[in-house]
Amino acid sequence: MHLFYQPSASQQTLEGEEARHCAKVLRLGVGDLIWVTDGKGKLFKASLTQVKEKEVKYLILESIEVPARSNRISMAIGPTRKAERNEWMVEKMTELGVDEIQFLFTEHIHHESIRRVLNPERLERIALSAMKQSQQVVKPFISLHRDFKEFLAGCKQNNKFIAYVTDTDVPEHLVKQVQKGEDTLVLIGPEGDFSPQEIELALSLGFKPVSLGTTRLRTETAAVMACHAVHLAQLI
Amino acid sequence: MHLFYQPSASQQTLEGEEARHCAKVLRLGVGDLIWVTDGKGKLFKASLTQVKEKEVKYLILESIEVPARSNRISMAIGPTRKAERNEWMVEKMTELGVDEIQFLFTEHIHHESIRRVLNPERLERIALSAMKQSQQVVKPFISLHRDFKEFLAGCKQNNKFIAYVTDTDVPEHLVKQVQKGEDTLVLIGPEGDFSPQEIELALSLGFKPVSLGTTRLRTETAAVMACHAVHLAQLI
Repeated sequence: MHLFYQPSASQQTLEGEEARHCAKVLRLGVGDLIWVTDGKGKLFKASLTQVKEKEVKYLILESIEVPARSNRISMAIGPTRKAERNEWMVEKMTELGVDEIQFLFTEHIHHESIRRVLNPERLERIALSAMKQSQQVVKPFISLHRDFKEFLAGCKQNNKFIAYVTDTDVPEHLVKQVQKGEDTLVLIGPEGDFSPQEIELALSLGFKPVSLGTTRLRTETAAVMACHAVHLAQLI
Repeated sequence: MHLFYQPSASQQTLEGEEARHCAKVLRLGVGDLIWVTDGKGKLFKASLTQVKEKEVKYLILESIEVPARSNRISMAIGPTRKAERNEWMVEKMTELGVDEIQFLFTEHIHHESIRRVLNPERLERIALSAMKQSQQVVKPFISLHRDFKEFLAGCKQNNKFIAYVTDTDVPEHLVKQVQKGEDTLVLIGPEGDFSPQEIELALSLGFKPVSLGTTRLRTETAAVMACHAVHLAQLI
């Protein structure tokens, strides 16, 4: 199944890397069948009508119904100080299926290096590639939020959680607290965790504390496992 | 909590990288408290009695009881063609907690590059570092098995699974099939999956087919998520 991305799928043209991949890597020809998604839940079956490295044209044959998740999954994360760990997180959450990946400016992140460790174009490319590789039709919306307080205040999900464990207080695991079918947001602290003020603010705004297991997880591992736990909670 | 590794913890000496880390990176001194694990489930509280870059000596003050998992978790995987994806898999499964990581020679792996993509010393270092980072006291046993058939025949776990989905037959998710508290083994295919003969063999030997979710996961993602699902199955 050759899956391509065209944000305006009705335009019936592939450009840039998508066109090159079609013409030069896969060496498809006129008449070959492809699948095209707009990354927003739509999938089309199409036939190639022109194959050039710079521009590929296709004719939509059929719109394919893809069952959408009933719940939206949003992950909000204090980025790590290593670009590759942030990128890995985006790849893996996209593979699992996620609607929004929101990076947050928190007290304990390294503000000066944020441009180096979060490159928006690279993250978009990684998410696009992971979406296609895992044969999905929803590309997560990736964003960066500079005002933690404003961000939290704007979260309207029914299921709002913060991964937060103390030596004396271990809340129930996320997988047991997620309500099936409800839009879910999970906050994951950066290396060095949220500050006490940030945790207090989240709790005061209705975020429920959750644990993510018995071992201490790195930020990027915590984010991916939390996303996985939200998926598994729908099954059990 | 400064956690160090000494496979014979009763020897009361740190060597090599562990000694250097203690003396040069953390700059600990005589009388400072450290924790030492043998990577086989034992944890000791100790006091430093000599701190040199080449050799650190300590006195064990106390043996700490660490509750062991009641079930052993073994993951058996057809390695990917990229060293960093195999290494990432080892890091993440170790963070979650795993007893054995077994790489398998299967039909569809790239046999010639196996030494390049699975470097035993690097994998050991990564597992050790992930064990300490996640504050655990069990380092997984990592091995490579050249005879797939012999390997499968030797698997005596009660819970033996193979991640295997066809277009027409989607078995129940692993998280719903794992029996709590039982030793569990999950087989994960390489890029290009197991061959039909390999799948048939596993099924004939009592491995139960499981799915790992609705999206198509890369080998390394499948392995880590399967390991996570076995953990979560203990909670629900």
